[in-house]
Amino acid sequence: MEIAQNYMGPGATNTMTRINENGNVVGTIIVNCEGFPETTTLDSLTAATYSTHMRNLSHFASNALKEIDVTDELMVLRMVSKKTEAVVVPDKEFHLIVLMRRR
Amino acid sequence: MEIAQNYMGPGATNTMTRINENGNVVGTIIVNCEGFPETTTLDSLTAATYSTHMRNLSHFASNALKEIDVTDELMVLRMVSKKTEAVVVPDKEFHLIVLMRRR
Repeated sequence: MEIAQNYMGPGATNTMTRINENGNVVGTIIVNCEGFPETTTLDSLTAATYSTHMRNLSHFASNALKEIDVTDELMVLRMVSKKTEAVVVPDKEFHLIVLMRRR
Repeated sequence: MEIAQNYMGPGATNTMTRINENGNVVGTIIVNCEGFPETTTLDSLTAATYSTHMRNLSHFASNALKEIDVTDELMVLRMVSKKTEAVVVPDKEFHLIVLMRRR
């Protein structure tokens, strides 16, 4: 989490540390608005792969939601697969992606 | 749930009734492999809208997952928005969509 401190304030760093301390969490990625992983606890290849796919998925979900109800807004998207569980929290400037072990 | 019994066995009907009895559940939709809502407790417009979008989203997620790991498989996709919470459970023949109130 050392890289994190170069980019984030102490509040955000504490939150990220708290998330990563959870036993089920494999790693976290913070993706910037250009789609690049800014901070991660994963290896760079995994981070890049998940960044691209989860960000696209969150855009797709966000657009679908806007078509259902234009006043609605995506908060969290959770994708559970046979092997892992990935959560993406979209924001205007950053996307937070959390990769977890299956419970 | 009367329509359901025309299409589903008693096991599936019991499961659907149990899901719909949950206080947070607004309604359920069973979408067939052609993308049409087969059974629903929602009005037909809402069912059709959610069927299209949630099915597309689940396909998108499934493809993304296959690109990350070809042996992995999507189990559940949960989309939480400011107003609602929608869950889609994909299957070969059917997709189950559950629409919920925000907790």
